[in-house]
Amino acid sequence: MKLFVDLGTQSYEILIQRGMLGALGQFVDLHRKVLVVTDSGVPEAYVKTVLSQCPNGAAFAFPQGEQSKTMDVLQEILAQLLQHSFTREDLVIALGGGVTGDMAGLAASLYMRGIDFVNLPTTTLAQVDSSIGGKTAVDFGGVKNIVGTFYQPKFVGIDPDVLKTLPQRHFYSGLVEAVKAGLLADETLFCQMEENIPDYLEEILYRSLCVKREIVMEDEKEQGKRKLLNLGHTLGHAIEAAAGLGGLLHGECVAIGMLPMITDVHLRQRVEQLFGKMGIPLKAEFDRNKAAQALLHDKKMQQKGVTMITIPAIGHPEMQVVDPEFVKEKLA
Amino acid sequence: MKLFVDLGTQSYEILIQRGMLGALGQFVDLHRKVLVVTDSGVPEAYVKTVLSQCPNGAAFAFPQGEQSKTMDVLQEILAQLLQHSFTREDLVIALGGGVTGDMAGLAASLYMRGIDFVNLPTTTLAQVDSSIGGKTAVDFGGVKNIVGTFYQPKFVGIDPDVLKTLPQRHFYSGLVEAVKAGLLADETLFCQMEENIPDYLEEILYRSLCVKREIVMEDEKEQGKRKLLNLGHTLGHAIEAAAGLGGLLHGECVAIGMLPMITDVHLRQRVEQLFGKMGIPLKAEFDRNKAAQALLHDKKMQQKGVTMITIPAIGHPEMQVVDPEFVKEKLA
Repeated sequence: MKLFVDLGTQSYEILIQRGMLGALGQFVDLHRKVLVVTDSGVPEAYVKTVLSQCPNGAAFAFPQGEQSKTMDVLQEILAQLLQHSFTREDLVIALGGGVTGDMAGLAASLYMRGIDFVNLPTTTLAQVDSSIGGKTAVDFGGVKNIVGTFYQPKFVGIDPDVLKTLPQRHFYSGLVEAVKAGLLADETLFCQMEENIPDYLEEILYRSLCVKREIVMEDEKEQGKRKLLNLGHTLGHAIEAAAGLGGLLHGECVAIGMLPMITDVHLRQRVEQLFGKMGIPLKAEFDRNKAAQALLHDKKMQQKGVTMITIPAIGHPEMQVVDPEFVKEKLA
Repeated sequence: MKLFVDLGTQSYEILIQRGMLGALGQFVDLHRKVLVVTDSGVPEAYVKTVLSQCPNGAAFAFPQGEQSKTMDVLQEILAQLLQHSFTREDLVIALGGGVTGDMAGLAASLYMRGIDFVNLPTTTLAQVDSSIGGKTAVDFGGVKNIVGTFYQPKFVGIDPDVLKTLPQRHFYSGLVEAVKAGLLADETLFCQMEENIPDYLEEILYRSLCVKREIVMEDEKEQGKRKLLNLGHTLGHAIEAAAGLGGLLHGECVAIGMLPMITDVHLRQRVEQLFGKMGIPLKAEFDRNKAAQALLHDKKMQQKGVTMITIPAIGHPEMQVVDPEFVKEKLA
């Protein structure tokens, strides 16, 4: 299955295909210097599959997880590119989850003010979420994603086969973004997820990406409509910051942050039921003051207030700028 | 005098006006958080003139010079923005030379993936060169400008009055870029400089910017025609790297790198004479091997060779991709 993301001169293609990793050379010119940026959680075999197609390739792996999303790791990647004398004609490939895509994409956007970037996301979260939208980032000064660029990949390759090695909890937590896409704009997608996720997996990935693509194409730089994609994220990030390390996964925090935004009681019950089937917790223990503090530093917090997305019915999201106090109430 | 740089949604205006600093609020919305990024070489009075118009402004100064163009200083600026809780609606102003514009612009492009940036260049070099083109950068791993972004300012304010406090040597060395602009595309500009620089100063700044604007508008991301602007820079950067600290100014290196590229003997003599009047040295002592080494790491060095710009006649530049060996010969 194929999606074309039409962004003028920044356009690119997303291909969803089993066995994609082993066939990458058919879609991307690998006959140049290639740095495969990956993390310690990605199976060695996947890295080898990609490298075996690159006559002039190297790999760089950093420790898995959000704690690697730093300026220091960014500089390590940039140093690799410099050390291998990469030119503007060469290529950076991200092979991993969202953190890997963010880091590799940011490095590619900065090295020589931008060299080619290809994204091969290996988690459900990265496949449905960070593989589209062109956002790259590192955390800085304790604030998530506060430093980054908008930078589009040349190609995104989604291989559903790589999800086999992903732990179940990560598999389902990543698909919270697919639930979000369904709620925002695609009732069929939502119903398929209610029915049976593994059976519809490829279509779920495809439909989620279609929803995100439509929104991003209308608003590449996040000035207006793109804020819809923040459904569940404003509260979710605050919960994530307050719950601390070793607690909930990102997708789980977003799920918990999404529930109070569904203003129709019946629909909220359906979502809770779906989350239940996916093994997503519906509640979390966290420090409310800490969450409120995190909210104040959220990028989505504007001078005038916070843009909140609510869902009164599937496919009919509403956007409103509210007082931070309102959000604090929702945290309760 | 006013120039409109037409880059679609990234368009902006450059205003050349004596007393501009004190009138900034007429052209830019300063009623928001403002960080004035400056360096230790900029007179305190200029910083105060700008800050006095900002109800919610702060200044951050780093030590003057290329040695401040680092990831560390970049992070200090980002930390300032974070500390003052800047949002996407706020503003970064660069007040200083090219290094300051590069650093402030890069920080503005990265913070929250891009907030407003206004450039107030205070040197001739920055006024004619870095105030247009949207290039931001830091040096990294010993390589000049290797990490950066393309990011357009919202407004550029050029105040010729601030040049009064600039040392003569810097004043003239920065105007080597104006000589370059004349050679590339504007014979009148070149003749005015031959005649009397102080008398024509504003028109020289204006005409230089017009030349650069035409080229940049045609080729925002430096894929083709923009390479013309590298006239003198490929050799110049190599000489700069080899001559070491405490030696020549950037503009002086570019001037020396430009001379061998002027293939008409009579024209070269005119340029040498003009440089002489400007107090620019026509020769330099440097380590040739070191310069050749620096060439290999130059961004302009592609897999296939180096793009060299030569001038057989004013207004008729020629572009050709040559073997690195050819450039090494020119170094001799």
